[in-house]
Amino acid sequence: MYTLPELKQDKDFDSIAIMTSGGDAPGMNPAIRGVVRAALSQGIKVYGIQRGYSGLIADDMSTLQSGSVSNIVQRGGTVLKTDRCTAFKDPAVRAAAAEILRRRGIGALVVIGGDGSLTGAHLLQQETGIPVIGIPGTIDNDIFGTEDTIGFDTAVNTALEAIDRIRDTATSHERHFLVEVMGRASGSIAINVGMAAGAEMILVPERAIDVAAISSELAASRRAGTGSSGIIVVAEGPTPGLTSRLAEQLREQGQDPRVCILGHIQRGGSPSGHDRVLATCMGAMAVRYLCAGYSDIMVGVRDGSIIDVPLDDVIRFRKGLDPSLLDMALQVHR
Amino acid sequence: MYTLPELKQDKDFDSIAIMTSGGDAPGMNPAIRGVVRAALSQGIKVYGIQRGYSGLIADDMSTLQSGSVSNIVQRGGTVLKTDRCTAFKDPAVRAAAAEILRRRGIGALVVIGGDGSLTGAHLLQQETGIPVIGIPGTIDNDIFGTEDTIGFDTAVNTALEAIDRIRDTATSHERHFLVEVMGRASGSIAINVGMAAGAEMILVPERAIDVAAISSELAASRRAGTGSSGIIVVAEGPTPGLTSRLAEQLREQGQDPRVCILGHIQRGGSPSGHDRVLATCMGAMAVRYLCAGYSDIMVGVRDGSIIDVPLDDVIRFRKGLDPSLLDMALQVHR
Amino acid sequence: MYTLPELKQDKDFDSIAIMTSGGDAPGMNPAIRGVVRAALSQGIKVYGIQRGYSGLIADDMSTLQSGSVSNIVQRGGTVLKTDRCTAFKDPAVRAAAAEILRRRGIGALVVIGGDGSLTGAHLLQQETGIPVIGIPGTIDNDIFGTEDTIGFDTAVNTALEAIDRIRDTATSHERHFLVEVMGRASGSIAINVGMAAGAEMILVPERAIDVAAISSELAASRRAGTGSSGIIVVAEGPTPGLTSRLAEQLREQGQDPRVCILGHIQRGGSPSGHDRVLATCMGAMAVRYLCAGYSDIMVGVRDGSIIDVPLDDVIRFRKGLDPSLLDMALQVHR
Amino acid sequence: MYTLPELKQDKDFDSIAIMTSGGDAPGMNPAIRGVVRAALSQGIKVYGIQRGYSGLIADDMSTLQSGSVSNIVQRGGTVLKTDRCTAFKDPAVRAAAAEILRRRGIGALVVIGGDGSLTGAHLLQQETGIPVIGIPGTIDNDIFGTEDTIGFDTAVNTALEAIDRIRDTATSHERHFLVEVMGRASGSIAINVGMAAGAEMILVPERAIDVAAISSELAASRRAGTGSSGIIVVAEGPTPGLTSRLAEQLREQGQDPRVCILGHIQRGGSPSGHDRVLATCMGAMAVRYLCAGYSDIMVGVRDGSIIDVPLDDVIRFRKGLDPSLLDMALQVHR
Repeated sequence: MYTLPELKQDKDFDSIAIMTSGGDAPGMNPAIRGVVRAALSQGIKVYGIQRGYSGLIADDMSTLQSGSVSNIVQRGGTVLKTDRCTAFKDPAVRAAAAEILRRRGIGALVVIGGDGSLTGAHLLQQETGIPVIGIPGTIDNDIFGTEDTIGFDTAVNTALEAIDRIRDTATSHERHFLVEVMGRASGSIAINVGMAAGAEMILVPERAIDVAAISSELAASRRAGTGSSGIIVVAEGPTPGLTSRLAEQLREQGQDPRVCILGHIQRGGSPSGHDRVLATCMGAMAVRYLCAGYSDIMVGVRDGSIIDVPLDDVIRFRKGLDPSLLDMALQVHR
Repeated sequence: MYTLPELKQDKDFDSIAIMTSGGDAPGMNPAIRGVVRAALSQGIKVYGIQRGYSGLIADDMSTLQSGSVSNIVQRGGTVLKTDRCTAFKDPAVRAAAAEILRRRGIGALVVIGGDGSLTGAHLLQQETGIPVIGIPGTIDNDIFGTEDTIGFDTAVNTALEAIDRIRDTATSHERHFLVEVMGRASGSIAINVGMAAGAEMILVPERAIDVAAISSELAASRRAGTGSSGIIVVAEGPTPGLTSRLAEQLREQGQDPRVCILGHIQRGGSPSGHDRVLATCMGAMAVRYLCAGYSDIMVGVRDGSIIDVPLDDVIRFRKGLDPSLLDMALQVHR
Repeated sequence: MYTLPELKQDKDFDSIAIMTSGGDAPGMNPAIRGVVRAALSQGIKVYGIQRGYSGLIADDMSTLQSGSVSNIVQRGGTVLKTDRCTAFKDPAVRAAAAEILRRRGIGALVVIGGDGSLTGAHLLQQETGIPVIGIPGTIDNDIFGTEDTIGFDTAVNTALEAIDRIRDTATSHERHFLVEVMGRASGSIAINVGMAAGAEMILVPERAIDVAAISSELAASRRAGTGSSGIIVVAEGPTPGLTSRLAEQLREQGQDPRVCILGHIQRGGSPSGHDRVLATCMGAMAVRYLCAGYSDIMVGVRDGSIIDVPLDDVIRFRKGLDPSLLDMALQVHR
Repeated sequence: MYTLPELKQDKDFDSIAIMTSGGDAPGMNPAIRGVVRAALSQGIKVYGIQRGYSGLIADDMSTLQSGSVSNIVQRGGTVLKTDRCTAFKDPAVRAAAAEILRRRGIGALVVIGGDGSLTGAHLLQQETGIPVIGIPGTIDNDIFGTEDTIGFDTAVNTALEAIDRIRDTATSHERHFLVEVMGRASGSIAINVGMAAGAEMILVPERAIDVAAISSELAASRRAGTGSSGIIVVAEGPTPGLTSRLAEQLREQGQDPRVCILGHIQRGGSPSGHDRVLATCMGAMAVRYLCAGYSDIMVGVRDGSIIDVPLDDVIRFRKGLDPSLLDMALQVHR
C-alpha cells in the first residue's frame, strides 16, 4: 500500500495520449487502465497510441473509453502493443511527432516504459514543449529515482516458480544448476530471486565473477556433504552467452553444472497483485500530476510513497545495487 | 529490496530459541531459516520450539542445524508448527516458561506471529526479563508499526488468482459475485485485492455498508449496460456470515448475487518472492538486533526500510487504513 | 492423445450455429475455436449464438471469423456467454427456435454443455428436424456415454491446488479439514481430487456417510499418532450445506474439523493442456461428424478414442462411479 | 479415471524394493507412495533404493514405512533420488546387484523410469531371475505399450504455462517466437503443447523441417495481416541446438524470430492431478501384479485401462506418433 501525495488541480486538459514503449512488462495493462479511468473521471479524453513511438509518428491512435480497458487488469503484455523505435532518436522525427499531437489537440503524453522510452519522452518535452509524464514499466527495476518498477515483482515470482521446479530436478539428480535470469546491467532480479530461492550463489553484473573461487566452493561443499545439489542464480549480464561460458569454464575445473536460461518467460504472465496495485496507483497519479501542472517528470516510489522525479535525473543517473542485500542473501545460504 | 540498518554487535548469546505462533502465514519458513542461518553464522545455537507457546510450556524443543532449514524456503505453513495458546495468558504460566528457557541456557526468544503472539512475547520480557524479539507474521497486515507483514503479499496473490477464476464465470453468466476475503478488523487484504482485481466495489470493516446504495448502484450499472457482471470484494468483518447476510439483503432488493467465501485457501501456499525476501531479511535482522543489544522490539518495515518498533507500541496502538487507497481503487473502477 | 475416427464427408452445409449452455466450464473456448476453425476450413459459415438457448430464442447471434476465435484458447469461461434457459423446456419455444435457425439458413446446431443442455438439443432435433451435435462441457464429468468432459481435468487441478494450500495450514496447526468440492450427484471430482491430494477420507454421494465411523477413525488415528492432521474431501451432494452439517455432527462427537467450501473457483481459470486438447479435438470432430451425415449425437470419449454417442442414450442413462478407484484411493491412504 | 483389472493374489512376498531411475519426472513420488502403501497393506516390507541402479549396486537402501511417504504426493522430483547408471550395462554388475537383493531377502524389484531404466530391469530378470515390474515414468510419453507415462501431463501443462507467458510478449511486440520443448525422438509433447497453445506451427522429429516453406508461410500470413505474431513449437530433436540453427536459417530468409528454450523447467514442479492419479494407480497396481504372479512386465495404459505389457515388447518396439492429431492441430490454427 502506497502513500499518495495530495495534489491540487490547477490545470485543465481536454485530451491526453498514452503509450507503452520498449520491452513489455506485466502490469502495463493496469497502468493503462489507471490512466484512462482517472482521466475520464476528470472529463479528459484519452488517445491510445499503438506500438509506442512507432505508432505515434505514424499517427496510429484512437480514443479509449472506459469499456476499452475493462477486463484487462489481469492480462500480461500490453493491449496498446509496444516497440523499440530507433527513428525517434532523430530530433526531426520528434518535432514531427509533436506536430501530430498538436493537430489532434492532445495536451500531454503519458509514456509507460523503461530508460530509453523515458529519454525519448524527456527530449520530446524539452524540444517541443509537449508536456510528458513517464511511468516506469520494466521488469529490470533498474531505473534511477524509483525503488520499484511495474513488472519487477511479477518477473521475480515467475523466475522463482521456474527455479522451484528446477530445484526438484537438481535435488533428485544431486546436481548443480546455473540458472540465468534477466538483468543486463542490473543484478536486481538476480538478488531477489536468489535470496527467495535459497540459491547457493548469486552472480551479478555489479561484482566480478571468480570462476576458480566458485569451483573451489562447489568442491568444498560437496566434500562437506552439504552441497551435493544447488542453484546458482546468474544475471545475464551485458554480453550474451555468459552463463554457457561460465558452465564451460566450470567444466574445465572439474565441475559439471547444468544450464537453464529462463529467457522471455520472465516478461509475460498475469501481473502479480503487487504490480497491479502499483501500476493502478502510478497510472492514476500520472493524471493527477498532470492536472496539478507537473510535467517532464516520472512517477516513482521513494520510501514507500508515490513521488515525482524529474525526468532529467532519471536519465542522467544510474541506479546502484544495495550491497547489503546481496551480503545478507549470501549469509543465510550457508 | 529493503534498506537495512547498520548495527554494531555489542552482546553475545550462546543460544536463542525460535517459535511460530497463532495463525500460520506463508513466509514463516523463510523467516525461520533466516533466523537460524544468521544465528549459526554468529556461532549462536538455535532451539526450535514446536507449536508456539504450547510447545514452550511443554519444553518441546530441539536444536536446529543449518540442514534443518534446507529446502524449506519455498514451503507454505511452518515446519515448527503453530498453535493458539490460551494458557499463556496466565502470568504464572509465563513465569514457568521463562524458567524452562533459563534452565536450557537460552538467552533470547524470537517469536514469529500476529498481535496476540507478540503480546505474549512482550509480557514475557516485561515480567521475566527474558529478551524477546517479534517478527510480524500474519496475512492480515494489521499490525501497528510496520507497513508489511510476512504472508500478506502471498495472501493477496492467492485471493486474486481465485477471483480471476471467478470472473470467468461472472462474465460468462453475466452475474455479480460477492467474494469474501480475510480481514476481521482490517480491510487491508480487501482493498489490495479489490484494486488488483478491478472489482466493482470493495467493502471493508472500516466503512459502514449501505445495502440500499449497493443495490441501486448495481441496478444503475445494469441499466447503463456497463455492469451486467462484476466482482464485489467483501472483507469478512468481525462477525461470521457477513457476506451471506449481505447477499440475502441484496436479494430482497431484487439483486441476485452469487457468494464465494475464499476462506482458508488464503493462508497456505508457497510464499511469493516478496514474502520470502521480506521474511529472510526480517529473520536475519532479528538476530542482528539481538546481537546489538535490542530487545522487547518487533522487526518492522517503515518507508521501505527495516526498522525496530517497541513491542509496547505494537500492542498499544491500532493500525488504521489509508483511505486514499480505497478512494483511488473506487475511482478507477467506473 | 486421442484416436480419431476416419469419417467420409457426404453432406454439405452452408452454415451452422454454435452455442455454450448451462454452467460454464474451462475449455469451452478451445471447443468453440475448434468448431469454428474446422468449419471455416470446410467453407462452412459459423454463427455464434450468445447466452445459450436464451440467445437463440432472441435471435442474438452473429457470424464468426477465424480471427473471432484468435487468442481465446487459453481463456476460462466462454466468449459466447452462457445461461440456464428454462423457457426452452417449452416445445413451442423450441419450435420458434427452429424457425429462427431456418430463417437464417442455418443447417445444424452445435451445443456445448451438460446434461440439461444436451436434452434441449435432442428434443430440438426430434421435434423440428434441425440436426444437432452435442459436446460434453461440464466440470462434473457426470455425462453418460463419455469417459471425459471438457473442464473436468482443469477443475480437478484447481481443487487440488487449493487443497495443497489448505494442507499447509492443516499440518501447521495439526487439524483436520473438511474440504467440499463440486459434485451434486457424482463423486467423480471428489475421488480424483481425493486420491491426488492424498486425502485421509473421501465422501461421495454414491456412498452413505457414517458420521460415527468417521469420528472413531479420526479418534483412532489421532491416538495412533499418525493422524494429527488431514484432509477429508467431501462431494457437495444433492442438498446444500452437507459439509457444514457434517462438521457440526463431528463436533458433537468430540472432533473439531475446520470447513472449507471451494465453490465457484472450481469453474474458472485457464484450461489445462488436457482440456484444451480434448476440447479442440471434440470441436473439430463435431464438424466432421456433421459433414459425414451424423446428427442427434454427442461427441464422446470411450477407451481413449473419440466416438459418437446417440443423444438419446446420453439423456436416458446415468453414469455410475467406478468403485474400484475409490477403493484404491482409500487403500493407499493408510 | 482408469479401469483397473481384477487380479487374484497367488503369490506371497516378504519384501520388495523400489527405485526411481533415469531422468526425474513429476509424479514419481505419488508412484513411490502407491507402491509403498499398497505393499504395506499386504504385509510386504518395502526397501527404498537411493539413486536408481547406482544405489542398488552400492547396496544403498533402507526400509520405508507408511510415514516415509506421507506428504510427498504433491512434490516434484523423487524422494528416492535418481541417476543414469552406465555401470549397470555390464552383466557382471547386474549379477552382483541380484546378489545384493537376494542377500537382503528382497523378492522383487519395482523400477520407475524410462526406456533405458526398463531395459536394465528386463535384463536383470532375464539374467538373474529376480522378478521385476516396470512403471513408465518419463515426461516424454515415448514408451511403447502405454498411451500415457507419469509426468507427461504435468510437463505439457508446464510448457503451456510458459508459452502462455511468451505469447503476451509475442502479441505485444508483434513477433514470432520459436519455443523449444522437450522431445529428442518424439514429438508427443510438442503436438499436445502446440495444439493446446494455439501454435501457428508445430515441428516434430517425425517430420522433416522445410525452412523455406516455414519462411514463406510466415511471410504470407504477415502480408495477409493475420500473422503479425505467433508461436512456433519445436521439439528439441536428436541433436542439440536445432531451434537456434532454425532461427538462424529463418533470419537468412528475412524473418526475425525470437528463440526460447524451455529446458529443465519442464521436468519439475508439483505433479498435476492427472499424473498423481495415474502414478498412484500404477504404483498400487504394480504390487497387485506382483502378488498375482506377474513379472518382467510394465504397468501401462491401453484404451484407458491399466494393463500389463511384457517388458520385452516395451524394449523392442518404438512408439510412433499419431499423425491424425498433428493434422488436426494444424487444421484448427488457420
